[in-house]
Amino acid sequence: MNIKRTLIVGGTHGNELTGIYLVNKFECEPQLIQRESFETCTLLANKKAYEIGKRYVDTDLNRCFQPSCLHNPKLSSYEAQRAKVIYLDFGTGGRLQADLVVDLHSTTSNMGLTIILASKHPFNLQLAAYLSDVNPNVKVLYCAPKTPENPYLDSICEFGCTIEVGAIAQGILDAHLFQQTEELVHAILDYVQAYNQGAPPQLKDTLTVYQSIGTIDYPRNETGEIQAMIHPRLQFRDYEALHPGEPMFLTFDGEEIVYEGEGIVYPIFINEAAYYEKGVAMSITRPENFRTKQLT
Amino acid sequence: MNIKRTLIVGGTHGNELTGIYLVNKFECEPQLIQRESFETCTLLANKKAYEIGKRYVDTDLNRCFQPSCLHNPKLSSYEAQRAKVIYLDFGTGGRLQADLVVDLHSTTSNMGLTIILASKHPFNLQLAAYLSDVNPNVKVLYCAPKTPENPYLDSICEFGCTIEVGAIAQGILDAHLFQQTEELVHAILDYVQAYNQGAPPQLKDTLTVYQSIGTIDYPRNETGEIQAMIHPRLQFRDYEALHPGEPMFLTFDGEEIVYEGEGIVYPIFINEAAYYEKGVAMSITRPENFRTKQLT
Repeated sequence: MNIKRTLIVGGTHGNELTGIYLVNKFECEPQLIQRESFETCTLLANKKAYEIGKRYVDTDLNRCFQPSCLHNPKLSSYEAQRAKVIYLDFGTGGRLQADLVVDLHSTTSNMGLTIILASKHPFNLQLAAYLSDVNPNVKVLYCAPKTPENPYLDSICEFGCTIEVGAIAQGILDAHLFQQTEELVHAILDYVQAYNQGAPPQLKDTLTVYQSIGTIDYPRNETGEIQAMIHPRLQFRDYEALHPGEPMFLTFDGEEIVYEGEGIVYPIFINEAAYYEKGVAMSITRPENFRTKQLT
Repeated sequence: MNIKRTLIVGGTHGNELTGIYLVNKFECEPQLIQRESFETCTLLANKKAYEIGKRYVDTDLNRCFQPSCLHNPKLSSYEAQRAKVIYLDFGTGGRLQADLVVDLHSTTSNMGLTIILASKHPFNLQLAAYLSDVNPNVKVLYCAPKTPENPYLDSICEFGCTIEVGAIAQGILDAHLFQQTEELVHAILDYVQAYNQGAPPQLKDTLTVYQSIGTIDYPRNETGEIQAMIHPRLQFRDYEALHPGEPMFLTFDGEEIVYEGEGIVYPIFINEAAYYEKGVAMSITRPENFRTKQLT
């Protein structure tokens, strides 16, 4: 199947400026994202959240794309409505139905350049393998949705991924991360062009995908207030090995709390600002290797 | 004049968690901030902003303390009212009138540990000199208010300072900066105790104070949208020398914009998230040396 239309999304979260300013740039200079064999559209997903400088107005837009929510007429939050409009435009059967969606995010965690797969479809895996070939700093991540239905925006198309870059504070631009994100977008478009022409690039033999195996919350008291911070030795150490017995949190009085799980894990989304309210101090992952030649 | 009451403030900005969690800690363990010769109070200044995860509800509380605002019955914003209540409690003639206020802030700029003087009163300068003696990483800053009247919270008392730590994203805790901020608070209280006992600590001969001499905005188009980002070579380089002709901004298309002022300056508050809306990409300073022996 050829890709006829690609959708590049910024501002799914209103305080993640990298994607918002990239989409603005592409809308001013559309020739940058044009390729011969397919159309590229852009979308500022949650403009109202951007205008108030927040992640969202009523609820997290990137948790609103479950089919049951998209088809539930009773949901009235601003983001539930935005999700419906976006799906109607770009989802299956939409007037601008897209085959591939690339959703641009940023994080206060030190995730570097992460490609989060929308699914483990061979196309997504091959695309991710290509991006990590082009830039060896790229990490590839897969987080299975916690719910039976996929709530993420990048699930509305056949193929998709999220680009997650950091560490960067909410509400600011970092020129280096801006340029690196733009380079990834161009690499994706180049890959699609080659794919459509029946000549996808040769890939390295192996792709490492970090698989999310769970989340760990901050220690909290009975009223839900957090009782400890990310330990300084874990801060900014996303994707590094954490062994049982190694420090994970530090209480406000300076006591260490260690990781008590079984076996080595690789934490990510460590100290992401938006996840305090979601009960997530970090996600933990384990790497899994895929042989790219078996993906076709 | 002895200091009878000290006020420690957190949460003047609702998304700067360091001060908020420190004040929470001190309120749970008040013995930590008790000293023999004076009383210490704590204040969570803008709890409503904290609850919504924003800097402020209606307007920046730390720009609401001009005497003309405090005495203007027509101002009805949430923060204007909070300012009046705080001043009534802790300002001159208040039921808990404080002699010294310490306001705890954080910033997305790489300001390290900065003491911002509320005024150049010899007490404030000596206190800052002591703190930079105790921790050589401490920088001391003075920003004269742009308005004839001082709008900052730390101006409500005879003596005062703001502790500004970073770089840290809004909405998160950083254990290392939390502990360093707490150490500065303890050092301040220890200094006040020694001062009240007539035995203030010996100080080094010279104190360097960075004097704010102006602000520089992002390049913007006619509708006010920013057209460039902080240059990667300037990002996180607060307090480092910037020479005329050195890069300052990078446009979204990758063009460098250089600093065209006269003489070397030392930028601070580089890429502070809250200042995008204030038209400030950075403040520029020049260092000035004070002889501490002449301060008494």
